Parts: sequence; structure tokens; C-alpha cells
Amino acid sequence: MNEIRIFSPATVANVSCGFDVLGFCLDTIGDEMVVRKTKEKGVSISKIIGSDLPYDIQKNVAGVSALALYDDAKPNFGFDIEIYKHIKPGSGIGSSAASASGSVFAINELLGRPYSKTQLTHFAMKGEAIASGSEHADNIAPTIFGGFTLIKNTSPIKVLQLPTPDELYAIIIHPQIEIKTSLARAILPNSIPLKDAITQWSNLGSLVHALHTNDYDLLGNSLEDVIIEPHRSELIPHFQMVKKEVLNNGALGCGISGSGPSIFSLCKGVKNAKQVKNAINNSYLKTEVSFEIHLSKINTEGIKIL
Amino acid sequence: MNEIRIFSPATVANVSCGFDVLGFCLDTIGDEMVVRKTKEKGVSISKIIGSDLPYDIQKNVAGVSALALYDDAKPNFGFDIEIYKHIKPGSGIGSSAASASGSVFAINELLGRPYSKTQLTHFAMKGEAIASGSEHADNIAPTIFGGFTLIKNTSPIKVLQLPTPDELYAIIIHPQIEIKTSLARAILPNSIPLKDAITQWSNLGSLVHALHTNDYDLLGNSLEDVIIEPHRSELIPHFQMVKKEVLNNGALGCGISGSGPSIFSLCKGVKNAKQVKNAINNSYLKTEVSFEIHLSKINTEGIKIL
Repeated sequence: MNEIRIFSPATVANVSCGFDVLGFCLDTIGDEMVVRKTKEKGVSISKIIGSDLPYDIQKNVAGVSALALYDDAKPNFGFDIEIYKHIKPGSGIGSSAASASGSVFAINELLGRPYSKTQLTHFAMKGEAIASGSEHADNIAPTIFGGFTLIKNTSPIKVLQLPTPDELYAIIIHPQIEIKTSLARAILPNSIPLKDAITQWSNLGSLVHALHTNDYDLLGNSLEDVIIEPHRSELIPHFQMVKKEVLNNGALGCGISGSGPSIFSLCKGVKNAKQVKNAINNSYLKTEVSFEIHLSKINTEGIKIL
Repeated sequence: MNEIRIFSPATVANVSCGFDVLGFCLDTIGDEMVVRKTKEKGVSISKIIGSDLPYDIQKNVAGVSALALYDDAKPNFGFDIEIYKHIKPGSGIGSSAASASGSVFAINELLGRPYSKTQLTHFAMKGEAIASGSEHADNIAPTIFGGFTLIKNTSPIKVLQLPTPDELYAIIIHPQIEIKTSLARAILPNSIPLKDAITQWSNLGSLVHALHTNDYDLLGNSLEDVIIEPHRSELIPHFQMVKKEVLNNGALGCGISGSGPSIFSLCKGVKNAKQVKNAINNSYLKTEVSFEIHLSKINTEGIKIL
């Protein structure tokens, strides 16, 4: 195999109660990438469609992650990458993670899969670091592993794959404003009340239990964020309106996707998911902010070969 | 049935990463209680062996919890309670919870089980409150439900029953000093660093996943407490020595039981548990502090009828 075309999905990190450690993978939103072997050694990017991203591989997250793998594998040939960007940078649904993960996944396939998913996560985090300033894996892990993932440790990276209930659907609304991850981080307090932390870890433990037991009600009741959301929701136009609309229409829960501005909702069954999507759509049309809205099953595979 | 004799077990709350929400139930340490119907209405305590606790039902945790249930059930007869106390008050292994839970469990049996385990937990928390100053359920829940329990909410109470891996054993060392729960609470900070909270909830989520997947290594790696243990371990003589000895002998993990001074260790298999127990015993014999030491399988039933 000399060439591969892949779909690298968008992801939702944090998921209300799992700040910095929890994430899940989407199915209908993602980038495409084509990677092919080249006679010349090294890594190059020859095409970027859909976004104004740098071609310099030292400055492009897909390039940096690819190079981290390449320098470890030391093959006697090279790779060229084409990126067809559909996830908008700064949207809060793992745009940089999709790029960083996609290139290493594709190169690993072309090399005959010498690396594990955990090793690919390690390489992809090198790319993610230039986008966000630190190596983190809460978007990378669900892109590579699929489904729901929990980061146990970051150094060395250890990813836990959580089960995904069959009937779970996500709705993503992306208000067309950009929130820099650095600002979304700066707005957070360094210290938090112990009693809030207890609520948060009770919710995260309950969410993990809910995923293992297919308990949709418990899953919904665990989607509560008493620490991050009160701060970051201020940056997102009409967040409270969306949340109220979503819950009034019977969704399991609703929260900020990653560092925002995208808002995710989780629903049981596609019928309710469509109802919730329509409700959000109709409410948000009345505001002054333009937006995109997506409905997706949870993607349990992660990156797919096309 | 006019009379019932029960075993009401000791429990380990917090379990390193689950402060205020996680607990598990022990099998070889516990109180016995005899409860019998009386013609006269009301609740009385006629015998307390093994500890100097009040007979006044308004001041005795078993009395207060029994009265809470009794006032709700309104039977046209009464109950008398005998308490054979084997768990030392202030030991950190749920002495008051065993008393508070035992009386309501026994009365519920004598009434023909009108109440669910969740309702019994609610009544028992009324008794626990007079011992610790607030209604909490992290010891009550494992006493009543057995195995590992996670408190999702306290008001109204919602208890999650987590799976218990078959080969899990606990060792409890109880240094014979008393730490008041109120002091153990006062020593804790009101605010904690966000980064420590993230580590803690990652560990709790991982522990829940480990219990569901029988992953003993992950269970051990999740038994880390970066928030409470650094403060409370200072109150427990030779805590660091015990922990080092325990981990050197291959235990999965080790931490403070409840608010201390008892220290719990968890092991895979009875053989390793015996080795760890011997190691702790031999080290602690060299200190100036007298102690008791117990080895127990995890009790997945909770309170038992004898």
C-alpha cells in the first residue's frame, strides 16, 4: 500500500464532569486526509483545503505529530500529506486533534501498523502541543480509540476505553465565534472549593458506571459540571438558552464541548436527537449569531480508512 | 418473626481517590445486634456490650436511626435493641455506620421488609449525623448494600452498587489512638488546586472502570489520593512506614480508612493478603503504638442475618 485516504473525526472533550480526562468521538463530522509514500525521505504537506493552515511541517500539528512518529520509525522513504479540513479550528470539537491523529494513523497503516494505539496517541500529543501549548490527550484519545475514553495518565500516556451505549446520539451546535484555548484556560481558577470537587468526582465516577451499565438516566444525571461550566459558559453566546431548550426537549444532558464555543447534547435514540436538534436550531435562528449544527451517532471506531 | 440477630459489618470509606463518596464492606469485622418486637410502642436499647455508649435512644446512633424508621412506619408495637459492639468507636472503619445501619436493617426485617435499601440508607444517615455532625452515607451505603458503593447524591440519597472483583482482600491495621472525625475534617483545606482535583477524578473514574473490568493493576494504580492523604496521614503514627511496607510486599494499594487512624490495604488473592498482613504486623510491632490488625475478603452482601 502506497497511499491511504482516511476520515479523522471530530471529538468532544471534557463532557461536563470529566474536565481534561474524558472525551467521546463523533461520526458525521471530521477531516479527510490522504497520505502517500514518497521516494524522498522526510515528511511534507502538499495540499491543505478548507482552512488557512501552515504548510511548514514544524508549524502544522499534522506535520509535527507525523515527524515525531517518522523520527522514531526511521523508514528509508518519506510521506506526503494532503489535508481536507472540514472541522473549523477553534470550534471546540477537536480540530487540531483530528489533524494530529490523522497523520500518524495513516502513516502507521502505510508502515504496516508497527505502533499501538497508545503509541499513536503519544505521537499525536506532540502535534496537539503546538496548537494548545501543552501535551494533552482528551481529544486525541477518542479520535484514535473511538467511543468514550478516559485519560488515566498523560506521562506515560494511559488511555482507558469505556463502553458506549448503543442508542447514544450527540448534537453539536457551533456558534460561529472563536474562543482561543489559551483564553478558555486563563479564565479558570487555579483553586476550587473541595466540596465542588467532590460533586465533580462523584459525577465522573457515576458517568463511568452509567456507561458500563447502559443506564441512560444516570448518564444524564451525571452530566453536570459545577467547576468549569460556570466560568466558560460566559464566553458562549446564548449558552443557557440552548441548555434550557435541550433539557426541556428531553435530552440526557448538555454542556460545553472542549473549551467551546461548541455545545454538545447527548440523547437516547435518534428520534429524540432529531427533536433536540430542531429545538436548538429554531431557538438559535432567533439570535444574532450564525451557527452550524450537527447530529451524530457516537463513533466507536475512531479514525476510518476510506 | 419476633426476634432477629444480625452481623453489621465494618466498612472502609473514601478508599484513597473517592473522598466522601466511595466505600467498601468488610467481612470479618463487625458488630452483632439483636432486635426483638415489644408490646409497648417505641424504641428502646436494653443492652450494650463492648463499648461505653449511651442507652438514651436520642443520643445513640442506632436509636436515632431506628426512631427515624419507626416514626415513618408507625407500627402498633415497639422494638428493643441489644448491641454487641466489636468495632471500636473512632477507629475509622464505620463504627457508627454499623450501629445506625444495623438497627434499621433488623427492624425492617421484623416488619416484613417494607423499605428498600435506599430507604434504609436514608434512615441510617439520621443516626450517622449525630456521630459525625452531618448526614453522610459513605460508610452507611456499603454496610447496607455490600461490596463497593458510590454515593451519587446525598439529598435525596442515591447509591450506586459497583462490581467487586472476586479475588480482592483487605487488610486493616488499627493503631490504638483515636482521631475525632471533627478534627480530621477541620484539618482539610476548603480549597484545593484544580490540577490535583483533575488527578483525583481521573483516579476515581479509573477505579470505577477497574472494578467493572476486573483490572487489578488499574485498580492498584487508581488508589492514589493527592488531596486528603497528605493532610490526614500526619495524624496517623507510622503511616508512611506502613504504606511503604505494604507496597513493597506487592499489595495493590494502601490508604487511610475513613478519617483514620485505621489504614487499609487491598490485595489480589488471599496468599498475598496474608503476606502483606504479616509484613505490617512485624513492622508495627517494632513501634511504640499498640494496634489491631484484620484480614477480610470484601463482603458483597453487607449486613447478614445470623
